[in-house]
Amino acid sequence: MAGNSIGQVFRVTTFGESHGIALGCIVDGVPPGIPLTEADIQHDLDRRRPGTSRYTTQRREPDQVKILSGVFEGVTTGTSIGLLIENTDQRSQDYGTIKDLFRPGHADYTYEQKYGLRDYRGGGRSSARETAMRVAAGAIAKKYLQMKHGIVVRGYLAQIGDVACELKDWSIVEENPFFCPDASKLEALDELMRGLKKEGDSIGAKVTVLAENVPPGLGEPVFDRLDADLAHALMSINAVKGVEIGDGFAVINQRGSQHRDEIRANGFQSNHAGGILGGISSGQTISANLAMKPTSSITVPGNTITREGEEVEMITKGRHDPCVGIRAVPIAEAMMAIVLMDHLLRQRAQNGDVNSSVPRW
Amino acid sequence: MAGNSIGQVFRVTTFGESHGIALGCIVDGVPPGIPLTEADIQHDLDRRRPGTSRYTTQRREPDQVKILSGVFEGVTTGTSIGLLIENTDQRSQDYGTIKDLFRPGHADYTYEQKYGLRDYRGGGRSSARETAMRVAAGAIAKKYLQMKHGIVVRGYLAQIGDVACELKDWSIVEENPFFCPDASKLEALDELMRGLKKEGDSIGAKVTVLAENVPPGLGEPVFDRLDADLAHALMSINAVKGVEIGDGFAVINQRGSQHRDEIRANGFQSNHAGGILGGISSGQTISANLAMKPTSSITVPGNTITREGEEVEMITKGRHDPCVGIRAVPIAEAMMAIVLMDHLLRQRAQNGDVNSSVPRW
Amino acid sequence: MAGNSIGQVFRVTTFGESHGIALGCIVDGVPPGIPLTEADIQHDLDRRRPGTSRYTTQRREPDQVKILSGVFEGVTTGTSIGLLIENTDQRSQDYGTIKDLFRPGHADYTYEQKYGLRDYRGGGRSSARETAMRVAAGAIAKKYLQMKHGIVVRGYLAQIGDVACELKDWSIVEENPFFCPDASKLEALDELMRGLKKEGDSIGAKVTVLAENVPPGLGEPVFDRLDADLAHALMSINAVKGVEIGDGFAVINQRGSQHRDEIRANGFQSNHAGGILGGISSGQTISANLAMKPTSSITVPGNTITREGEEVEMITKGRHDPCVGIRAVPIAEAMMAIVLMDHLLRQRAQNGDVNSSVPRW
Amino acid sequence: MAGNSIGQVFRVTTFGESHGIALGCIVDGVPPGIPLTEADIQHDLDRRRPGTSRYTTQRREPDQVKILSGVFEGVTTGTSIGLLIENTDQRSQDYGTIKDLFRPGHADYTYEQKYGLRDYRGGGRSSARETAMRVAAGAIAKKYLQMKHGIVVRGYLAQIGDVACELKDWSIVEENPFFCPDASKLEALDELMRGLKKEGDSIGAKVTVLAENVPPGLGEPVFDRLDADLAHALMSINAVKGVEIGDGFAVINQRGSQHRDEIRANGFQSNHAGGILGGISSGQTISANLAMKPTSSITVPGNTITREGEEVEMITKGRHDPCVGIRAVPIAEAMMAIVLMDHLLRQRAQNGDVNSSVPRW
Repeated sequence: MAGNSIGQVFRVTTFGESHGIALGCIVDGVPPGIPLTEADIQHDLDRRRPGTSRYTTQRREPDQVKILSGVFEGVTTGTSIGLLIENTDQRSQDYGTIKDLFRPGHADYTYEQKYGLRDYRGGGRSSARETAMRVAAGAIAKKYLQMKHGIVVRGYLAQIGDVACELKDWSIVEENPFFCPDASKLEALDELMRGLKKEGDSIGAKVTVLAENVPPGLGEPVFDRLDADLAHALMSINAVKGVEIGDGFAVINQRGSQHRDEIRANGFQSNHAGGILGGISSGQTISANLAMKPTSSITVPGNTITREGEEVEMITKGRHDPCVGIRAVPIAEAMMAIVLMDHLLRQRAQNGDVNSSVPRW
Repeated sequence: MAGNSIGQVFRVTTFGESHGIALGCIVDGVPPGIPLTEADIQHDLDRRRPGTSRYTTQRREPDQVKILSGVFEGVTTGTSIGLLIENTDQRSQDYGTIKDLFRPGHADYTYEQKYGLRDYRGGGRSSARETAMRVAAGAIAKKYLQMKHGIVVRGYLAQIGDVACELKDWSIVEENPFFCPDASKLEALDELMRGLKKEGDSIGAKVTVLAENVPPGLGEPVFDRLDADLAHALMSINAVKGVEIGDGFAVINQRGSQHRDEIRANGFQSNHAGGILGGISSGQTISANLAMKPTSSITVPGNTITREGEEVEMITKGRHDPCVGIRAVPIAEAMMAIVLMDHLLRQRAQNGDVNSSVPRW
Repeated sequence: MAGNSIGQVFRVTTFGESHGIALGCIVDGVPPGIPLTEADIQHDLDRRRPGTSRYTTQRREPDQVKILSGVFEGVTTGTSIGLLIENTDQRSQDYGTIKDLFRPGHADYTYEQKYGLRDYRGGGRSSARETAMRVAAGAIAKKYLQMKHGIVVRGYLAQIGDVACELKDWSIVEENPFFCPDASKLEALDELMRGLKKEGDSIGAKVTVLAENVPPGLGEPVFDRLDADLAHALMSINAVKGVEIGDGFAVINQRGSQHRDEIRANGFQSNHAGGILGGISSGQTISANLAMKPTSSITVPGNTITREGEEVEMITKGRHDPCVGIRAVPIAEAMMAIVLMDHLLRQRAQNGDVNSSVPRW
Repeated sequence: MAGNSIGQVFRVTTFGESHGIALGCIVDGVPPGIPLTEADIQHDLDRRRPGTSRYTTQRREPDQVKILSGVFEGVTTGTSIGLLIENTDQRSQDYGTIKDLFRPGHADYTYEQKYGLRDYRGGGRSSARETAMRVAAGAIAKKYLQMKHGIVVRGYLAQIGDVACELKDWSIVEENPFFCPDASKLEALDELMRGLKKEGDSIGAKVTVLAENVPPGLGEPVFDRLDADLAHALMSINAVKGVEIGDGFAVINQRGSQHRDEIRANGFQSNHAGGILGGISSGQTISANLAMKPTSSITVPGNTITREGEEVEMITKGRHDPCVGIRAVPIAEAMMAIVLMDHLLRQRAQNGDVNSSVPRW
């Protein structure tokens, strides 16, 4: 109800502010008997962590996760899993100046209107630091999906500004600071970033996430369709302003005869639908795109007002990404994994292990 | 869990198949003392109804809604409201031929994989006919939002194929069969539709929905952000493949200095954010775009397989829209109204009537 | 949130007032492929119906249930099932006199305080007539439990006033108007009822419900234990003031050495626990007792006040049971069946089909 | 879904095993601006803590709670509150012997059946140690209820074995190790406990909890009645086997003319209902009784089997209460407070601040 939980069976509830004592979450509904260690989770946390590239924020926290419960003798027990990351590098002093004004493009104004007050230290709960726990919980989902169903959830940077990156080579995605799958664009991205750093400005991005080997049948009509729940999960990530499934907005100018994915004895002949028909997975690869806005934490001066309504000009100091899209890849993967995991268990709840007699490919 | 409900406090649960006995819903959590008649609901149902324009399906049902409970002496009582629409024009015989094959682009294959069987009459539960109850429930939300808060939720057709329609004149939206706000585009739309009819093909569309006068403070961080819940609700509509809030996918190529909405003493200076910051409404107009795929119910022959895996060619007979986007405007309004209504009550639950001392405009 | 739903996976949402147009419910999450007809549901509705015995209310409605959706070609499809019972015998005139006063022991006063108004016709939503839809939904659960797992849920009248009825003979329970399992007590019950009729008074009752053949493993620690969810479901029935699991309140004076159910190679040696340990079913018979208060709808004059606060004396005219406990047996069975059904599916969601290597009996 | 959460708006989710690293919880939905310190929570934790009386377990942990988030500058911010208690006194070695057998009367067997494995250290998640987080979360609810509405939630020991304790004097409840409100029974209780210690046996208990100054209108018909949600919450406490509201099981032998609480101009003339009518609070004091079973952790030898099905005799060593009812008073208060808090916010969600024109007392 108050919004800090996601999922129905596989349910993740998080807490923690940017400059508080710790971040944490409870992952409920994890099937028992799954091998799980802190290292399984740490890997994705490290991928998300600021400071791993020279183009992301300079905040350097180890982000060491601790498993506090729900794992015994190396495997999950079916009881709720508590995860904790202590905040070790808070630098509260950096943020004192924003106490009494509303940074444009930030949640300062809306938190104040919602709650009548706000934790102004580094954006408090509205900081992207909150996404660390999404990544931690998502790592558990990713492990289960891979281990039990061979499902692979992975993403890449598809565009920054006008530099579009095609999916040419998965192998280089983890080897460059942009999660870019197209080696020929690395230099252009590098140049773009350097320019923005110099200007003190930021830029938007597009991220693509795919899930391969998803069995057909996931998604609950009519409101909790798989695409609807993916849209919810992905749009809940900081800075996301748009979500597409399959061909997305390109469908506006498509014909029915062109868009429908025809079927032959060897399976679907195309995948305009992005792996989801009628809100239910079809067995094809699920694909989603996210549009990430340019961060408003920039040093180009901007107009705003104080809590008392006085006009002021401000800049955002501190450690900030010129493109938050870069860090978004592991977060988007985590959210997609959480949704798929939840829907696998939801499908099993009502329908058991469906042994349909109709073809699967 | 099984997906037929939406909302937390204002909670809508629906049932009904395309060719079943009736469609119905239960609307729970409606505040007491709200004047409500069947006519309040019927108005939007009539806007959505197929057959109201020559470009939508030829199915002609009166779609008369009955209020079965929860209203006494003309006002809501706070107890659950039962709504019912009987199906009076079912023509089951039209659909017998699709019993044993999977229409490409439809949910036939995925329902079969999910449940091991399906109601093949007119798509059963996966038919767009299901959206009638969304519109009915949304009408209650719209009435409350308008009456109690002066909130106006309304939408229009923004694009079909390559014919884009700008918001020039709200007054004509209800006066043309396309919900188009741009008189200069009516002829082009008409021509496009006539061509598609002739070809037996269909086309995608873009719909825009706006909510004006929404108070700041709605939306629940971090997962049930207002934009995340809107994305969920809008993506849950049949045929939607993309959702944007504010500038949406255009942010990919925006700078932070350009996107952030600056604030001066008289309020926000722009609205790139679409009325939502950090997942919470800012008091500005909330805007969302939807991409609707072209329907696969066309008479252009397509390849598919039978339940036994044999390859066949098929066409879809029956009464179908060449552009489902046309009927989507009242549905999109309903879904946005349901989400706003729910979040108004959720906000009141935790935060009461916040009397923030900071400026509102 | 607004309270008209129960269950997580198998989820029942109801509507309807005593003197409204109809009662209805939506049953969501029913597994597909289960044979289901209206007759399956009607049987239990008839057992609950007032007027089936001369000791229950004289209201005579056929209570004919209609299945509106979710069943196709005789089996459930996995989509939401809409059920409807029209009210055909409303006699609103009987209740006009209670419009402006608060019947003592009834919900008139509290509904007015909660909602600021109330549907005063026959108690509106607070009438026991609401329980018809519980019985209808419960019949679906009972059918599934029996068919898939051999689980039998059945109850009996355990006590009225000081006439206690032991479980001597299941076969007579359905053959006497009291659901009494002890033939030797029928005359005493009959006499007690006749006396109350003459006095215009009512009396409380104790009802026992059992579930046999429940597999071990149902119940979700720590809050949604099986006993906790049973207590919720049973206490939610009109007039229930107490719930016991197993030995219930008798445990206050038991020793640990006496209460613990010892285990030997052939299984548990006793069942003080009532089939639930640590909130999880043990495989033994689940037993629960309910205490039903005497109805306040009696003709013995009582003191109360009007809406304006004036003191008045009133009696309740109309058609009323001298002992609501008599009709409670099928309702209690329904609620227990709903809880078990939900927990079977919840267990399957997280834990799949557990094949524990430890003994089962 | 997996059972580790309670409440809808005020929502508590817990984790932690008896002998794990830490216990924790997330409290979501707390209204902003409420002064809150660790000391507010610690007070009730100390009341619950084992080792505070010589009759409770000898485990001596400081149970120091830490607030990790959701509080800033001394007040709640409206974001989720993370609480943590580290386990400092685990003594795993005490429990090694129970690894391969099922303690009779414990959850060992049912956890193994549910999950296929279990954390056997001190009962793992099924240990009463889990209730520490209930008390911590309940302390936040109690503070809010008292501060905002003057609601006082408090309980006492009503009976152990055949020693019944009447509510004679609230002032002594906190001054004796039994939470007993009747000074004349202290010696009998002391003697009873000493005898049990000698025998190595245990005994059941009855606990009463009251909530004073609860406003009318709380509770959501028809399933989430206030009494139903209280029954759920109280029955979810370890070892509870029965719950009564108001007169409870005594109603079985009451007449309607006796049970109904008549109303006069100065208010209700009695409170047989226990402050709840039709599932909604009436403004009278809410009363509930709990029956706690005698703990099965005793040194009287008992029969059981191993995981392989071999018959063995066992005793429970370690540090255990002869009467778990003694520690249950603060836990029962916490659960009642959580339910009331949640229903206050739920009532506000749908109905706002109802200003009924009918009398309140």
